[in-house]
Amino acid sequence: MPRSRLRDLGITIGTYPTGKYNAITDVSDILVGHHTLNYDEPHIARTGVTIINPRGGKIWHDFAFAGFYSLNGCGEMTGVHWINEAGLLTTPIAITNTHDVGLAHHALVRYGQEKELMGIFTLPVAAETYDGWLNDPRAKITEENVWSALESASSGVVAEGCVGGGTGMTCHEFKGGIGTSSRIVETKSGAFTVGALVQSNYGSREHFRVDGVPVGREIGFDKVPSSRALTVAEGSIIVIIATDAPLLPDQCKRLAQRATMGIARVGGVATNGSGDLFLAFSTANHYPNELEKIQGVNMMPQHHLNELFVATIEAVEESILNSITMATTTRGQKGCIAYELPLDELKVAMKKYGR
Amino acid sequence: MPRSRLRDLGITIGTYPTGKYNAITDVSDILVGHHTLNYDEPHIARTGVTIINPRGGKIWHDFAFAGFYSLNGCGEMTGVHWINEAGLLTTPIAITNTHDVGLAHHALVRYGQEKELMGIFTLPVAAETYDGWLNDPRAKITEENVWSALESASSGVVAEGCVGGGTGMTCHEFKGGIGTSSRIVETKSGAFTVGALVQSNYGSREHFRVDGVPVGREIGFDKVPSSRALTVAEGSIIVIIATDAPLLPDQCKRLAQRATMGIARVGGVATNGSGDLFLAFSTANHYPNELEKIQGVNMMPQHHLNELFVATIEAVEESILNSITMATTTRGQKGCIAYELPLDELKVAMKKYGR
Amino acid sequence: MPRSRLRDLGITIGTYPTGKYNAITDVSDILVGHHTLNYDEPHIARTGVTIINPRGGKIWHDFAFAGFYSLNGCGEMTGVHWINEAGLLTTPIAITNTHDVGLAHHALVRYGQEKELMGIFTLPVAAETYDGWLNDPRAKITEENVWSALESASSGVVAEGCVGGGTGMTCHEFKGGIGTSSRIVETKSGAFTVGALVQSNYGSREHFRVDGVPVGREIGFDKVPSSRALTVAEGSIIVIIATDAPLLPDQCKRLAQRATMGIARVGGVATNGSGDLFLAFSTANHYPNELEKIQGVNMMPQHHLNELFVATIEAVEESILNSITMATTTRGQKGCIAYELPLDELKVAMKKYGR
Amino acid sequence: MPRSRLRDLGITIGTYPTGKYNAITDVSDILVGHHTLNYDEPHIARTGVTIINPRGGKIWHDFAFAGFYSLNGCGEMTGVHWINEAGLLTTPIAITNTHDVGLAHHALVRYGQEKELMGIFTLPVAAETYDGWLNDPRAKITEENVWSALESASSGVVAEGCVGGGTGMTCHEFKGGIGTSSRIVETKSGAFTVGALVQSNYGSREHFRVDGVPVGREIGFDKVPSSRALTVAEGSIIVIIATDAPLLPDQCKRLAQRATMGIARVGGVATNGSGDLFLAFSTANHYPNELEKIQGVNMMPQHHLNELFVATIEAVEESILNSITMATTTRGQKGCIAYELPLDELKVAMKKYGR
Repeated sequence: MPRSRLRDLGITIGTYPTGKYNAITDVSDILVGHHTLNYDEPHIARTGVTIINPRGGKIWHDFAFAGFYSLNGCGEMTGVHWINEAGLLTTPIAITNTHDVGLAHHALVRYGQEKELMGIFTLPVAAETYDGWLNDPRAKITEENVWSALESASSGVVAEGCVGGGTGMTCHEFKGGIGTSSRIVETKSGAFTVGALVQSNYGSREHFRVDGVPVGREIGFDKVPSSRALTVAEGSIIVIIATDAPLLPDQCKRLAQRATMGIARVGGVATNGSGDLFLAFSTANHYPNELEKIQGVNMMPQHHLNELFVATIEAVEESILNSITMATTTRGQKGCIAYELPLDELKVAMKKYGR
Repeated sequence: MPRSRLRDLGITIGTYPTGKYNAITDVSDILVGHHTLNYDEPHIARTGVTIINPRGGKIWHDFAFAGFYSLNGCGEMTGVHWINEAGLLTTPIAITNTHDVGLAHHALVRYGQEKELMGIFTLPVAAETYDGWLNDPRAKITEENVWSALESASSGVVAEGCVGGGTGMTCHEFKGGIGTSSRIVETKSGAFTVGALVQSNYGSREHFRVDGVPVGREIGFDKVPSSRALTVAEGSIIVIIATDAPLLPDQCKRLAQRATMGIARVGGVATNGSGDLFLAFSTANHYPNELEKIQGVNMMPQHHLNELFVATIEAVEESILNSITMATTTRGQKGCIAYELPLDELKVAMKKYGR
Repeated sequence: MPRSRLRDLGITIGTYPTGKYNAITDVSDILVGHHTLNYDEPHIARTGVTIINPRGGKIWHDFAFAGFYSLNGCGEMTGVHWINEAGLLTTPIAITNTHDVGLAHHALVRYGQEKELMGIFTLPVAAETYDGWLNDPRAKITEENVWSALESASSGVVAEGCVGGGTGMTCHEFKGGIGTSSRIVETKSGAFTVGALVQSNYGSREHFRVDGVPVGREIGFDKVPSSRALTVAEGSIIVIIATDAPLLPDQCKRLAQRATMGIARVGGVATNGSGDLFLAFSTANHYPNELEKIQGVNMMPQHHLNELFVATIEAVEESILNSITMATTTRGQKGCIAYELPLDELKVAMKKYGR
Repeated sequence: MPRSRLRDLGITIGTYPTGKYNAITDVSDILVGHHTLNYDEPHIARTGVTIINPRGGKIWHDFAFAGFYSLNGCGEMTGVHWINEAGLLTTPIAITNTHDVGLAHHALVRYGQEKELMGIFTLPVAAETYDGWLNDPRAKITEENVWSALESASSGVVAEGCVGGGTGMTCHEFKGGIGTSSRIVETKSGAFTVGALVQSNYGSREHFRVDGVPVGREIGFDKVPSSRALTVAEGSIIVIIATDAPLLPDQCKRLAQRATMGIARVGGVATNGSGDLFLAFSTANHYPNELEKIQGVNMMPQHHLNELFVATIEAVEESILNSITMATTTRGQKGCIAYELPLDELKVAMKKYGR
C-alpha cells in the first residue's frame, strides 16, 4: 500500500475544512523548501534541512508578528530572544538536525549578507531535532545545502515524510519527519487560514493515537518493531504555525501555545529530553525593516481567536499524523531501521474502534 | 443510575495504578475541605469554597516547593508572584467563585493572623472559576465559610461534583465541579504518588472525549440540553497537582505545565475567556519558615520525571471526568439548569467505539 | 524646612522636561484618589488605599493595553494573569497594605457590580506593600474606603508622601509613601507623556542615592535613626507607569521592565522579601469591552521606544525621591517612628558632591 | 597614562571586598580563554572569541545549576531553552561577534564530539555582541579560533579590554570589550564568591556614570569623539555571573536578573537594539550527566541571597568599568576609531564630584 496523507485514507481530524493544499503553504506567500541528504557513502547520511520562507522571501525586510512557546526546552531554536522581546520574525526559518543548527544559523546569516537581504545584522531562526540514531554524525549539512533549500522553496504542495530536516526522524516509534496541514476558519472577524508544519521526532508507541483511537497499542512491537534508539527514549518536535489572521505578537504566542494540545491528542507527553519548541507567525500585519513612523496594525478581538485555537490544534494534530503516514521505512547507520506505520493496519485499528 | 466515579463505571484512563482513594489525598498529609452554599432563599445559592491544605495544615510554617503555569490567563490565582520567584507554597489553597476570590484571600490572611499560623505577612493562594450562570451573584461566600472549609478539611475520600467551589460549575456543557484522581508511579528514583484536584468549568460538548471516544458528539443537545450560559461561551479550570516525589521548584512547574495535556485529551482547547491556571507542589522537601542555614534538599534526575509527567496527565484527565460523572443536575437562578452527563448514555457511547 | 518635591529643592533628575503637574496625571484622563486612615483610636491606624483610574473612569469598558513585570515577586498584584495573556487593563488599580489586598480586590468587584460598570465578571488589579510596622494590624481598610478613593479620584495635582496606600510606608530607612513624576519626550513618532506613580517601601540607608550622590551614607543613623522594623529588613515597591504613546502590550511590558533601572539609580537592590511589581499601560489604543470586529491599533517603531525607556527610568527615579521628600515623620504603633529625610541635610550632601 | 583597572585608579565600587584576582576566576575552577583576531590584512580584523569554561573544563559531564535572564532580547544566546527548562549549564560558554555565533555554536559541538566530552547530543551556550563597525564583516572567527580559546583557557588573571570577543566592542561611546570583577560576601549561610564577566558594547556617553558621577557629561565629544557608528546607535552587553554559593536554578536566575541594576548604575538604559542577555551559574551543586538516582543538593535560604544580590550588582558594575578602563583606542575598518576613556580625565571628573 503506497504512502498516503492521512486524509486520503479517509481519516479526518476535527471539523474545519483544510486549505487547497492542506499545507502551511495555504497561507499566502509561504514558501517551503527541502534539501535532503540521503546516501550511503562515505557515511550513511539520513539528514537534511527544511526552510520555511514567509512573504515569498521578503521576510528579511518586511517583518511579521510572531510568538514563541517552549513546551519542553531540551532543544534549540535560535532567534527567539528577539521574538520574545519585539514579537518580530525577521528571517526565513531553518529546521535541521541537532548538531548542525549552528551551521544552519551561520548559513542564514551568510545568505542574508551575500544576497544583501538583511540590515547590518540579523538574528535568524534555526531549529533542530536529533537524528543521530539513523544518521551517521559524520554526515553533515553544509552552507550550500541550506542555500539550496532556500532557493528551491516554493508554494503549493509540500513534500512530507523523509525529506529535508525530517529525513532521519522517528515519531511514536514509527518513522516520522516532516508533516503539514491547514485549516480554513470562519470567525466573526472574517475567514482565515491557519497552517502548520512539523518536524516530528518524539513519542512512544504506547501513547500513539489517531483521532482518539489507541493505534499504538493495536500495532504492537510484534507487528512492527520499535523505531527508536534504545539510548534515546525521548525526542523532540518543532512546530511552525502560520496564519493570515490579523494577530498581535501576543496573539501569535497564544496560537503557539495551543500546539501542545494537538500533540497531546496524538499522544505526546513532552518527555524530559524533548525539544518541543513552537513558533507562530501572522502575515497580516507588516513591520518594514525601515519603519520610522507610527504603524497602523490590525488585531482580532481576543475572543474571536477561539476558532483559530481549534484550527491550530487540528492542524498540528494532522501535521504530525501526515509526517508519519507519509514517511517510509528507512535503514540507517549500524543497521538501525525505522519502520513506517503500516497503513493497512492503521485502517484495521480505526475500524475496530468504530471509525 | 446513581452518580459514580469514572473508574467505577469500568472506564480506565491510562495505565498507571491509582492510590488508595484515587484522590489528591493519596499524597500524604494533604487535607481537602469543602463548604457548599446550596439553598434557594433569599437568593439561589449555588457556590462554595474548596480548600487544599498540605502538610496536615502545617504548610504555614513548613513551606513546600511549588511551580505555577498559566495555560490561559483569563482568571485569578493569587500568591503566584512569590511562587514564580522563590518556588514556595506557604499557605493552604482556596478555590471559589470569581467574585469572591478577594474575599477568600482575605479569609486566609485573617485565619493565619487569628490562629497565629503565619509570619508577619503572608501571600495566600486563592483561585476561582465563574459560576454566575447558576448562582445568583448576591449569594456570596463569607469569611466564616472559608474557615469552615479549612477546619473541616480531612484526608481520605474527597467529595466530588457539586461541592465546595465546584457547586455551580459546568464542564463540556454538562454539570461539572470538583474532581480528583491519583496515580502511583514506579520510577528509577523510587515509587511516588501524584494526585490532582480540579475545579472544572470549561469546554464545549462538541469536543468532549472520554479516553479518546467522542462522547460529546454522541450525546447531542437533542439528548441533553447544553448546560452553559449563552453569554458565557467559555469557562475555566483550576488544577492543583500534589506529589511526594522529591522535586525542585522548576520540576514542579514542569508537572503543572503537563496538566494542559490532560485537559487536551478530554477536549479542552483553552478558549480565550478561560482561566486555566495550574499549580503543582511537592511535599518531599521542606523549607521551614525560620530557615537560617543552608538546607539540603533532594531532586530527582530530570529524565526520571517522565513517569511523573504521564501520571500527571492521566490524573488530570481522570479528575476532570470524575468532576463530571459525580456531578448532579442542578437547577440555578432564573430557571437555568445544568444537566448531568447521563452515565448510561456514556456507557453506550464507549461501547459503540470499541471500549 | 517644609516638605517639598525634589525638583522644588533645585534637584533635577535626568534631562527630559516634566509635564504640567510632574505627575502620572499628566497623561490625559488619568485620575488619582487616596483614602487615608491616620488616627490613633481605637488602634494606631497608619494605612490607606490609593486608586489610579485611567480614562477618567471609563477603563471598565474601554480597555487599555498593558504589560506587567516582576522584579521580585514577594508581593501581590492581582489581575496580572489576564494582562500577561491578553495585554489588557480592564479596571482601576488599587494599591493598599499587604493584608487588605484581598479586600481591595473585593471592593473593586463590588464597585463594578453595584455601579454596573463591568461585564459579567472582572479581574481587577489590586496591589500592596507592607505597613505592619507603623500600622496596627487591627486597623484595616474597608470596602467603603476603596469606594471613597475611587470617587474622589481626580486629575491634576497628586498628593504625595503619607497619603492613601503610602501612609505607613518607609523607603531607604526614611519615611516613604506615594510619589509621582512625569516626562515629556520627543520621539521620531511624535511627542508623548510618560507618567509614573510609586508606593515606595523598600531599601537601605546605605544604598540610598540622589542623582548618584551617596546621600544615605552622608545622613547616617547618628543624624537620623533608621526608619524600619528590625524584623523587616526588606520591603517592596509598586510602580505604575502610564503613557499616551501608542504601544502594543509587549511594548508596555518593555516600559514596565525599565522601572528596575530607575530603582537601581536610587539604590534599590530588589531584596528577597521585596514585592517589586510593575505595571505599565498606554491610553493611546482602545479595546472596547464589546469589541466584535477587527480593531485597528497603532504602534510605535520599536527603536523609537528608546526615549520612552529613558523617560520611564527618570520618572520612576524621581517618583521615588518625591515619595521621600514629601513624606513626614510618622509615629506608629508601639512607639515606632519613621523619620523623614531632612531636606537641609539633603542639600548639604548634594553640594558636597558637586551638585 | 597606561591603561588600568578601575580599582588601581583608586576608584572603588560598592563595599564588599574583591577576590584575589578581582575576576570571575576567583570562583574556583572557572577558566577563561580568549582568541583575538587583530590584524589589518587582507581585511581589518577586530574580533575574536572568549570562552568561560566552568569546573576546569569538566562542565561537559558535571553540569552546574544555572539561570538566564533577558533584559532586552535583541541578541543571541543559544542553549537557553534547556537552561530555562532544567536549570542546567552543560557546556563551556563562548562569546563572540553577532554573525559568528552560529559558528561558535558549531565549534563547541565539534569540540565536544571530537574530544568525546559530550553525551549523544549537546546544546551549547554561545552568545554575541555586534562589532561590525570596527571589524570588517569579512573577518570572521573560525572553528580553530574557538578551540584555541578553549584550550588556552586558564584560571587566575583575566585579560580585559580589547581581547577575545571584546576586541571590536564599544561601550558608552568609548572603547569597551571584556571586563571582569568579583566580590567576597559573608552571609549567614557562610562566605561565598560572586564573579562577573561582561562583553560590553552598549550605552551612550551622556548617561555614563562612575560610582554615580556623571563622567560622560564631563568628558564630552569635544574632548573625546564618540566611539560608535552613527547607524548603530545601540548595542548589547553579555553578562556571565558565577558563584560558589549553593543555589538552586531559580536562585541563579535571581542573580542573573540583578545584573540589570549594575548596568543601570553605569548608565545603561537597555535600548531597543540591545542584546542584554545574562547567565548566572553556581558551581556548588553537582548534576552528573549520568545521574540515575535522587541527588542531594544544597540551597541557601532565600533571604540570605540579599548579600549575593548586592555582590552581583557591584561585580557587574565594576566589570563594565574595567572593560572600559582597560580598553585601548582602536582603529577599525573604513577609518573608524573607537577612543579609549582618558583615565586622567576620569580622575579629574571624579575629584570634581567629591570623590
